[in-house]
Amino acid sequence: MTNGVEWVAVDWGTSNLRAWGIDADGNAVFSRASPQGMGKLTPDQYPAVLTELLADAVDHPVDALICGMAGARQGWLEAPYLDAPSELTHLAAGAVAPAMPGSTIRPRILPGICLRDVGAEDVMRGEETQLLGLAALRPGFDGLVVMPGTHSKWALLEGSRLTRFSSAMTGEIYEVLKTHSVLRHSLQGELEGPDRDTGFEAGLDLGLDRPDRLTGLLFKVRAGALLSGRTAPWCAGFLSGLLIGAEIGGHRDWIGSTEIPLVGSVAISKLYQRAFRRIGISSRIVDATDATLAGLKAARQG
Amino acid sequence: MTNGVEWVAVDWGTSNLRAWGIDADGNAVFSRASPQGMGKLTPDQYPAVLTELLADAVDHPVDALICGMAGARQGWLEAPYLDAPSELTHLAAGAVAPAMPGSTIRPRILPGICLRDVGAEDVMRGEETQLLGLAALRPGFDGLVVMPGTHSKWALLEGSRLTRFSSAMTGEIYEVLKTHSVLRHSLQGELEGPDRDTGFEAGLDLGLDRPDRLTGLLFKVRAGALLSGRTAPWCAGFLSGLLIGAEIGGHRDWIGSTEIPLVGSVAISKLYQRAFRRIGISSRIVDATDATLAGLKAARQG
Repeated sequence: MTNGVEWVAVDWGTSNLRAWGIDADGNAVFSRASPQGMGKLTPDQYPAVLTELLADAVDHPVDALICGMAGARQGWLEAPYLDAPSELTHLAAGAVAPAMPGSTIRPRILPGICLRDVGAEDVMRGEETQLLGLAALRPGFDGLVVMPGTHSKWALLEGSRLTRFSSAMTGEIYEVLKTHSVLRHSLQGELEGPDRDTGFEAGLDLGLDRPDRLTGLLFKVRAGALLSGRTAPWCAGFLSGLLIGAEIGGHRDWIGSTEIPLVGSVAISKLYQRAFRRIGISSRIVDATDATLAGLKAARQG
Repeated sequence: MTNGVEWVAVDWGTSNLRAWGIDADGNAVFSRASPQGMGKLTPDQYPAVLTELLADAVDHPVDALICGMAGARQGWLEAPYLDAPSELTHLAAGAVAPAMPGSTIRPRILPGICLRDVGAEDVMRGEETQLLGLAALRPGFDGLVVMPGTHSKWALLEGSRLTRFSSAMTGEIYEVLKTHSVLRHSLQGELEGPDRDTGFEAGLDLGLDRPDRLTGLLFKVRAGALLSGRTAPWCAGFLSGLLIGAEIGGHRDWIGSTEIPLVGSVAISKLYQRAFRRIGISSRIVDATDATLAGLKAARQG
């Protein structure tokens, strides 16, 4: 196993765990993934999970630099938030080192970032590393970055400095309404199909136009199914478009003149790209894994 | 049991069933309640439930005039929606009569009202009867009526004519986020307490001011708990205030110069009254049961 691995990059999220062995040139020489995310673990289980994940890959002493929810209060060991505005190249200075007795792995967990202003509090944990990665991949970039997801983030970068950010619960609202609200009756069965696009466009236009009317417009999913025979794919597209449209419509004052990097899953990022195109804003999809890996590398060097 | 009951007024909702025996003077001489709402019943179960509810109260032939979800497609027998604009005194003309073989009860179910305009579809079922009741209780009233609830309704009345309405999923969004989203971590345990009022005011101000930013502001519940030590009652109040504020803030163009009747549960209506007062609008709480009963009486006469 003298595989040239100098250190291990780890992204430990709520649902999943991923690790990459990095060689002296900064290349990933192996990768591992596991469903053992923070949401499924108690603090004492982390050492064994990480040991097992890396068992066939490294047997010599290595640093493991970890970002994400493993550093949350309910994770492995809390890595207290740094305050924004924040110079992201200094992230590693805020890392914490949980104990791994008897192991050759030396873990460090990067902190998240917070805004403490009372009434405007916000937090991120994991995205700060992707933002640092984006700053490394796009030297000199200044402007808005949008990170679509369960809790989307809108972030303003000045090079590697994070000046301000805001979260939106768009992805999670979609999931809970789809699963638990009266709208579930209109979203049963197969949700893919050609109608989904049409529904998405209809919802998007309404959301972009009237983000302030969101609680009312959501009911159009149900009423459209009852009265206009809207199919489940149409309703799913409408709900998705309405929520994404309302998120973007409510953040128009954040949008500047630079092309917006979209950091998130490609499928969801494509929906945001369509939404931004609708209002004449150009955006570019950045692979989220590339951003995470670049961020962990930059944090290790920083 | 010769108790002077001329007919039975029935409010058959999703969660509950209520019935009142009405005498020749229009007074309720008995009332019954049951948790056997539409959500728990298959169509064939309705006759037995109604028979049992009234078993010790009436033994002579009586009409039972029913409003609410019993007339939904998934209820007892579908009472197709009437189209708005709609003269509410004609509601009974759209009633359907389900069969109750062998019974002395002669049920009729009132229709709901819908807006069919594609892209602006909306439905109500039950509230139309309360609106007719309000028109009977407040002869000559013209203007906006707000009906707080799981799916709040904003309705424009011209006497007994319903010209336009709009739904908002405020109550249901509160419930699903409280129960199923990441916000549940901040809303555990006792949710009442003095902090609840403070949280409500804080959320209300934000929602009224920035209804367009709702998907983002919702995350402040979580961030406020993590960073500023907000208690569960504060978070519950904030979430409630934010959603009610956003509902009202997004419907400002509906608000005219008349005092707004609030038809709904007294506890929830009081929150809406506080919210309207915050923006200088006067409102008056109308007992929802009074409105339902007055509406069923007016529909029977109409």
